[in-house]
Amino acid sequence: AASPLICPHRLLPLSLGLFQGALLLFFALFVTYDEPSAQAQDADLVANRLYGIFPLFQDIQVMLAVGLGLLLTFLPRYGLSALTHNFLLLNFSTQWALVLQGLLQHFHHGQVHLDLRSLLTAEFAAVTVLISVGAVLGRISPCQLLVVATCEVPVYLASEWAIVTRLGVLDVGGTITIHVFSCYFGLGVSKALFGAARQPLHPKETPTPSSDLLSLVGTLILWVFWPSFVAVLCQPGDAQHHAILNTLLAMSASAVTTVVASSLLERDGKLSPGHLQNGSLAGGVAIGVVADMAVPPVAALALGGLSAMACVLGFRFLTPLLGGGLALQDQCGIHNLHGLPGILGAVASAVAILLASQDTSGSHFSQVSPIGGNASETSGGRGGDRGAGGQALCQAAGLAVGGGGSLLAGLLTGTALRLPWGGRPPQRLCFDDSLYFKIQDEAGSPVPGGTAEEGALALKERV
Amino acid sequence: AASPLICPHRLLPLSLGLFQGALLLFFALFVTYDEPSAQAQDADLVANRLYGIFPLFQDIQVMLAVGLGLLLTFLPRYGLSALTHNFLLLNFSTQWALVLQGLLQHFHHGQVHLDLRSLLTAEFAAVTVLISVGAVLGRISPCQLLVVATCEVPVYLASEWAIVTRLGVLDVGGTITIHVFSCYFGLGVSKALFGAARQPLHPKETPTPSSDLLSLVGTLILWVFWPSFVAVLCQPGDAQHHAILNTLLAMSASAVTTVVASSLLERDGKLSPGHLQNGSLAGGVAIGVVADMAVPPVAALALGGLSAMACVLGFRFLTPLLGGGLALQDQCGIHNLHGLPGILGAVASAVAILLASQDTSGSHFSQVSPIGGNASETSGGRGGDRGAGGQALCQAAGLAVGGGGSLLAGLLTGTALRLPWGGRPPQRLCFDDSLYFKIQDEAGSPVPGGTAEEGALALKERV
Amino acid sequence: AASPLICPHRLLPLSLGLFQGALLLFFALFVTYDEPSAQAQDADLVANRLYGIFPLFQDIQVMLAVGLGLLLTFLPRYGLSALTHNFLLLNFSTQWALVLQGLLQHFHHGQVHLDLRSLLTAEFAAVTVLISVGAVLGRISPCQLLVVATCEVPVYLASEWAIVTRLGVLDVGGTITIHVFSCYFGLGVSKALFGAARQPLHPKETPTPSSDLLSLVGTLILWVFWPSFVAVLCQPGDAQHHAILNTLLAMSASAVTTVVASSLLERDGKLSPGHLQNGSLAGGVAIGVVADMAVPPVAALALGGLSAMACVLGFRFLTPLLGGGLALQDQCGIHNLHGLPGILGAVASAVAILLASQDTSGSHFSQVSPIGGNASETSGGRGGDRGAGGQALCQAAGLAVGGGGSLLAGLLTGTALRLPWGGRPPQRLCFDDSLYFKIQDEAGSPVPGGTAEEGALALKERV
Repeated sequence: AASPLICPHRLLPLSLGLFQGALLLFFALFVTYDEPSAQAQDADLVANRLYGIFPLFQDIQVMLAVGLGLLLTFLPRYGLSALTHNFLLLNFSTQWALVLQGLLQHFHHGQVHLDLRSLLTAEFAAVTVLISVGAVLGRISPCQLLVVATCEVPVYLASEWAIVTRLGVLDVGGTITIHVFSCYFGLGVSKALFGAARQPLHPKETPTPSSDLLSLVGTLILWVFWPSFVAVLCQPGDAQHHAILNTLLAMSASAVTTVVASSLLERDGKLSPGHLQNGSLAGGVAIGVVADMAVPPVAALALGGLSAMACVLGFRFLTPLLGGGLALQDQCGIHNLHGLPGILGAVASAVAILLASQDTSGSHFSQVSPIGGNASETSGGRGGDRGAGGQALCQAAGLAVGGGGSLLAGLLTGTALRLPWGGRPPQRLCFDDSLYFKIQDEAGSPVPGGTAEEGALALKERV
Repeated sequence: AASPLICPHRLLPLSLGLFQGALLLFFALFVTYDEPSAQAQDADLVANRLYGIFPLFQDIQVMLAVGLGLLLTFLPRYGLSALTHNFLLLNFSTQWALVLQGLLQHFHHGQVHLDLRSLLTAEFAAVTVLISVGAVLGRISPCQLLVVATCEVPVYLASEWAIVTRLGVLDVGGTITIHVFSCYFGLGVSKALFGAARQPLHPKETPTPSSDLLSLVGTLILWVFWPSFVAVLCQPGDAQHHAILNTLLAMSASAVTTVVASSLLERDGKLSPGHLQNGSLAGGVAIGVVADMAVPPVAALALGGLSAMACVLGFRFLTPLLGGGLALQDQCGIHNLHGLPGILGAVASAVAILLASQDTSGSHFSQVSPIGGNASETSGGRGGDRGAGGQALCQAAGLAVGGGGSLLAGLLTGTALRLPWGGRPPQRLCFDDSLYFKIQDEAGSPVPGGTAEEGALALKERV
Repeated sequence: AASPLICPHRLLPLSLGLFQGALLLFFALFVTYDEPSAQAQDADLVANRLYGIFPLFQDIQVMLAVGLGLLLTFLPRYGLSALTHNFLLLNFSTQWALVLQGLLQHFHHGQVHLDLRSLLTAEFAAVTVLISVGAVLGRISPCQLLVVATCEVPVYLASEWAIVTRLGVLDVGGTITIHVFSCYFGLGVSKALFGAARQPLHPKETPTPSSDLLSLVGTLILWVFWPSFVAVLCQPGDAQHHAILNTLLAMSASAVTTVVASSLLERDGKLSPGHLQNGSLAGGVAIGVVADMAVPPVAALALGGLSAMACVLGFRFLTPLLGGGLALQDQCGIHNLHGLPGILGAVASAVAILLASQDTSGSHFSQVSPIGGNASETSGGRGGDRGAGGQALCQAAGLAVGGGGSLLAGLLTGTALRLPWGGRPPQRLCFDDSLYFKIQDEAGSPVPGGTAEEGALALKERV
């Protein structure tokens, strides 16, 4: 057969191993830690700064490795793969982002100084990959996942630089730079990869109550720790406090509104587990961009409720439409969770800036600490200089750049994945752990390639 | 049929939606954040205070959304509903408590200032609802759950005010104000709702090993984070340190004693998963009221061991007795986990106050920071004034008010639930996710209303 | 029958109950809290110190109770037992270590002062037990588990004293004192207990996809919080910051390298869930001993990658070899996760010390805060005095003492377990929750002793 089953020629371990070697080389040549503080009071300062950021950092690690991983286990026979691929991509993308950040941002300093903050921003780059591949969950091979990560991380870094540093967009929680970006990147990949062929419903695609339950646990973990994600890069003090409160309010409104919307949309008033798993988080996506602005509590509540509504409506009406007319695969519904609420948030940020300027002559929206270390002074200053109308336009421009650029880059990446060496699993073998794992099925008999028929097929294709 | 299957006429989403609208209105009119600090050193203070409370707050969120949610999944076919209803109630009750707190406590200040602490006290009000509905888990509809929450939150706020502010009861961990209160409220609801009819054992009521396992994971999460729950409102410094240590010791003794008691009570020395899931937490319930008092470590250990023993004995002997003679339904055994250990804790607090006064002239028990912001000075001062005997009597009076008042209020609430619009699911359809969720069963076929028979019935009743 | 099924004569609850009584007595006689601070600024200090250590302490509690517990649930019919025995051992061993620490270390002060730090070091003693019993998971009874804990904790305390305090070994993350120690202790127990008899593969020993999934979730929880475990006893400030960063890098390299190694070793490029569950954590084991030394970031990455490779290779080649030739049972593969990476880490620490001395005249490796409170000055000073060559030799000597001593002690403990009162479950009944729990199987029928045949057997043996 022309296209082998998974990655041919041990491409996955060999390329990953090669990358680990390159990573070691890069670290050996360029990366060091900061010098230890000379004086005792500096040590206290270091300790206090660490106590401020480390608990939030751990919260985010739980979100990405455990929460998001569990959320993806809604496919009943694909849980191990979903959890493992998510974990692998998290680590690979973070490492790759560390290399690129080091090369791009700090290269002119000669040495790259690693601290918890640079690890955190690298992890934010990884988040975009984890979100994007939700669009094609279960349909592409680990090799292809790595290609997506390899392409997406540099595009993200460029896009984040353009949006935050150049345009001066205020987006402390990554609504535009992370969520909108990764959503349209993922949709681009999916569209280019699957083309115009509509994918029929796969028998293994339907969640069971127990897989839905585990996935909902993932949602709850994400829901609980989301304030840390939004607030970790805020200015310590009031801005951070308000960002946390705004996120809590938005998440709370999202949770309740999701139940309302899901129940209203179904004929017999029942809830859809998928709506709950996603809608409850929509408020967190949307609030990021306004979290540390001078918005009243009611705005956070309203934004949370609206974005949950948009998310549920998206699942009910937009996804079937896109899947039908545009033949656009979106396995996890990332457009409903990250796209629509992200756009809502970006619009809300422009409105908030305009309204704040009328209240108090526009000085409020400089109270912000955007993602990316040295960008904060630049954009903060810029935001202060440019006036409210200009800043609101900026937010809109950032949305356009984030969404449009990523869609284009995603389409290119998806096209690259169609090349013969990609090794995409055939439709029949999708959504099945036995393709990637040495496991036995629940009844106890070994599963070489799913069912006997699939096993024979796998064998044939491997020859 | 006269009474429709679940909530009739889309009552659930419509009433929830209406409430969200009212919440928005209330927030728009009255709620603001504190003004940002003017000076840099104030900002440091805000940041430090945030770093002190925020990690504990997150711990409590994990406990309520994930830990308690998982603990309730011991019903093998009701996991999604248990997790979702718990999550919905957590959010609805917190919002409702925010509204009432705003109206009642802060209204005379003109504006309601929202901060992390007020969110936290609102969340404590929600905890009482989450505990109470454990008595009727799986037997009442989401609409009825919301009615319980609507009634219980104001009663809790009144009761907490009476106990802590008026009586000056010392109860930093909410043993009386939260656990005893919610236990008897829940039992009252259950009694009034089900009357004298004994509920036969339902075939879906029996846990399976895998549902017991997930439930035990919930217990472990609650067990780990319980010290944060007890200590979050303590005075920072030694009182908080001691509260954490006391809670850790009590939880540890509870865990071991539960194994001892459960193993001794069963004929062949086997353990009961239900005993473990609850008994391990009994020490945390009991210790709350004495956690920041001047008690020696051995007292925490002893109280933890005793309350675990009471909890296991309760499951073994008291629950069958209550279920038989009094026809009192207590699905989760909240009387064993929250009632008995709560009473033990209250008694222990009176004893501790009396003993401490003999040692050191009674000044110790003022080292406390009761739940509720501005109540701390009042009761602290009062505790100091009134002498040890008076304070010990107070603790007993608080227990009586907390238990008796809530039982009465619960009975009234349960009676209200019997009104025809309640929509309680018929006995046959209890404990089944398919009543509330659009799901497919594990075998893959759609489950409109459980089995085919139930589906037909559901259809008939809906007409 | 001569040997009853599980613990005879209610030995488990009676001995545990007796121990709880003794614990109460010991606490009543000797243990107190520190006096409250007299002055307000001391209270601030206490509060700040608490905020520094408490979040890390909670992380470690999550690791031990939830993460490690879940990791052990890979046996599909033994999940409840694995989780419960782990939880019981955690509590029992911590209490037992508190008693011994109190008796041994602080007895000459008259009173034992309990604080969060002494609880933490007691918990570290418990960790060794939790690791060791992994070698015999599912094959020994709860009574035997308690005997192991009773023997291992004092040996650990002696070994830790010898290694850290006497030899002055630097080992902030417990690589030698905890991981290597507990690995060889556990292997000693296993060898002495099972002798030369090879255990045939048990039908209930094979994981299912869903048990593997839950176990992988445990791995992820351990993976996320591992930096807290390594850094909690570090000197606050730069040393702690570097320890966290080093651990994060090592864990990240481990995760990726595990995928590479597992995929390369399997014929068709599939992954083994067991490799992922263990290999991803190997870096955390190895990095502990060098985490706060002056090593460059690349060293952490390399050590993480190497130890993951060693772990996976161990599972693939060494475990079958040991199980065959030496008839050495290692159910969880603790030799691969704790033994090999621990040895690697110890060697790396010696190399790091030698290299650091060439760079900067050897002053770096005193930047350390070893486990155990008052040991830090001793060993720090000693490390500074003795020169790099001496210190490197010390690390090797520590490894030899840790590994050799524990192996010997483990063999003795295992021999004690062969005595007739041990009550080891017969081979047929291993790996089955129904031996220790009152449960019903998934189909709903009661399981008195597993299958009907086992039930009859259990009944017969109990007479």
